[in-house]
Amino acid sequence: MADFRLMQELRQKAPGKIVLLVMDGLGGLPIESGGPTELESARTPNLDRLAAEGTLGQTIPIRPGITPGSGPAHLALFGYDPLAYEVGRGVLEAIGVGTEVKKGDVAARGNFCTVNAFGKITDRRAGRIPTEEAAPIVEKLAHIRLSGVQIDVRQVKEYRFAVVMRGKGLEADIADTDPQQTGVEPLSARPLQPGSQRSADLFNAWMAEARMLLADQPKANSLTLRGFSTDPGLPQFTEIYGLRSACVAAYPMYKGVSRLVGMDVLRFEGDKPEDEFAAVARSWDDYDFFFIHIKKTDSMGEDGDFAGKAAVIESVDAALPALVDLKPAVLAVTGDHSTPARLRTHTWHPVPFLLWAPSTCLPDDHLAFGERACTIGGLGTIPATDVMPLLMAHASRLIKFGA
Amino acid sequence: MADFRLMQELRQKAPGKIVLLVMDGLGGLPIESGGPTELESARTPNLDRLAAEGTLGQTIPIRPGITPGSGPAHLALFGYDPLAYEVGRGVLEAIGVGTEVKKGDVAARGNFCTVNAFGKITDRRAGRIPTEEAAPIVEKLAHIRLSGVQIDVRQVKEYRFAVVMRGKGLEADIADTDPQQTGVEPLSARPLQPGSQRSADLFNAWMAEARMLLADQPKANSLTLRGFSTDPGLPQFTEIYGLRSACVAAYPMYKGVSRLVGMDVLRFEGDKPEDEFAAVARSWDDYDFFFIHIKKTDSMGEDGDFAGKAAVIESVDAALPALVDLKPAVLAVTGDHSTPARLRTHTWHPVPFLLWAPSTCLPDDHLAFGERACTIGGLGTIPATDVMPLLMAHASRLIKFGA
Repeated sequence: MADFRLMQELRQKAPGKIVLLVMDGLGGLPIESGGPTELESARTPNLDRLAAEGTLGQTIPIRPGITPGSGPAHLALFGYDPLAYEVGRGVLEAIGVGTEVKKGDVAARGNFCTVNAFGKITDRRAGRIPTEEAAPIVEKLAHIRLSGVQIDVRQVKEYRFAVVMRGKGLEADIADTDPQQTGVEPLSARPLQPGSQRSADLFNAWMAEARMLLADQPKANSLTLRGFSTDPGLPQFTEIYGLRSACVAAYPMYKGVSRLVGMDVLRFEGDKPEDEFAAVARSWDDYDFFFIHIKKTDSMGEDGDFAGKAAVIESVDAALPALVDLKPAVLAVTGDHSTPARLRTHTWHPVPFLLWAPSTCLPDDHLAFGERACTIGGLGTIPATDVMPLLMAHASRLIKFGA
Repeated sequence: MADFRLMQELRQKAPGKIVLLVMDGLGGLPIESGGPTELESARTPNLDRLAAEGTLGQTIPIRPGITPGSGPAHLALFGYDPLAYEVGRGVLEAIGVGTEVKKGDVAARGNFCTVNAFGKITDRRAGRIPTEEAAPIVEKLAHIRLSGVQIDVRQVKEYRFAVVMRGKGLEADIADTDPQQTGVEPLSARPLQPGSQRSADLFNAWMAEARMLLADQPKANSLTLRGFSTDPGLPQFTEIYGLRSACVAAYPMYKGVSRLVGMDVLRFEGDKPEDEFAAVARSWDDYDFFFIHIKKTDSMGEDGDFAGKAAVIESVDAALPALVDLKPAVLAVTGDHSTPARLRTHTWHPVPFLLWAPSTCLPDDHLAFGERACTIGGLGTIPATDVMPLLMAHASRLIKFGA
């Protein structure tokens, strides 16, 4: 918060553009102790040239040791401390599957569960039914109508789905209906303050109808809702940094988070790096800041596909000249967190960070972009929330503090 | 505080054990500008192998430039910001000599002083009388009895001692009786709030009796008390991290601080590294976390004995295989602060830190454990309070934050 005030006080207009290129889950680990990481093993002549001309470092996404989800990790890169600016689980689940959640909407994360003849939960995750099996069930729920509200129901994955209600007078302070144990009935939606009574009534009515539709299912014969939340009303990116800002992403979660902070989300065809960079080129004159998101580094990491992750990095590298040719004042290349193929999951490890700002940065003698070089890079190890002020500075968009 | 909540929200059970091996005052300085530090000069093949496989870094115990005492330095390593969680000087002095201070006890630090015939202080430290000379005097004071309280008096060193009172209705908000100047009388114990009146009366009665017993002493003919305090009721280690935790230390101060955070203190014979590691081995199955404290690195540093300090480090290295053979998931080797032999005292310098977690850590190209390697280690320079979250993460004991 204090830092946003600093940005607002010091920011100035400048012609230079800022590009933040995020390869999701970029940080990796060697398969064997002496070996290279995914990024170190990838052939990346273009990134290496930027590394040679630029400054390296590494970022801590949330706090040391804390493994971030995608939402908080991106908020941090945008300058929002994720511990101070929490986005509800319902909202993250909903925007992750492409539902827009506006101020006053109420989003919840849904779980299918299995109940016995007495209505007591026997499996909180409905036997983790496969996504294909859950799809037609979610489809049924999407037909439920309640007067006075629009309802959007979307499948997430396996036993998980998202519900968003939109209408007048809704509030999101509602307790979870998942009792977090088996052998008891799902709870009803209970308002945590009087203003949420109407929302709770609506969600209870919706759950009653849903349970009727599910009653004959062998596994997913009931459900619970939790993480009731709305657009948290984050300070808006443009108001903080004074940047006309655009998001170029192929996946819903990243578009969703960008919308929450007030970025424009650009439409484009395709999901390859060159498609995303072409989208940036087409809108180059209309924005000061571009956030570009590459998803597949993370997907390959989660699949444990070391070579596949390196290949995605190489495909980004191959497409990179198109981006550099646009002559951004500042180009930062990093990840939102680490997803080492060896561990097949998001991790807490610091994330390699490359800052390229040909007019202003101190080249730090590293000739290639990689984790080990970044650990001893000129920027040091910094919180991800420090990235935006650095990019602003290198784009000549911050004036001096004090006389 | 916020970070404890984070630990409590994110922690999960996992089988891997965590070992935190603290060589007190580990950080050192070269004797001559180009030379090695104590740690760098020591022959440490086992630590060097861990360094090659692990990740290095350095910790800031309190804040940059701040030299820590032993109590705050250890609290920081345990994750407690010493500026937020203050332990009173009386409590630290008392636990430093092996007195247990429980909630509701009142501990004070005592100084012998010299007063003249008018009762005015002429020397606030009684000519820094030697420990041997003070011992029988402290012994006398230990016989004072007051009704309704148990009193424990222990020698510390030279003119210093500790007094702990235990009984009903005691409170510790009492002003220091040391006027911090000569030429005036010692102050009486004055309650800082009404609840402390009884404790103040008792300490005044005790001081009156003590001064009668001291009246004929040539130097230590009076005394002052300060740092009145009780067990601060710190958040308990097990409740924060969910770890069954054990302290293996030979010296009272470290056992005392471990007790304050709720660790079990293991009993064992001997004070050599191999004795301590054997104690860990014996209790391996009973705990998730072991804090092992090696005192003599600090003692040698305070003695200005560069070679002696290096030899202690070598003795730890020689015993280390017994610890590594237990197969901890995470082994961290560090100090609580620096005590360079060249400066013969605790200092504020960052402390070398070695993190070894064979499944999860990024080896950072350093082949030996030493201050210079640590300054450019892969973990960067981190506050000591970040150590525990890192160890928790590397032991797979933290789930993801946010979606």
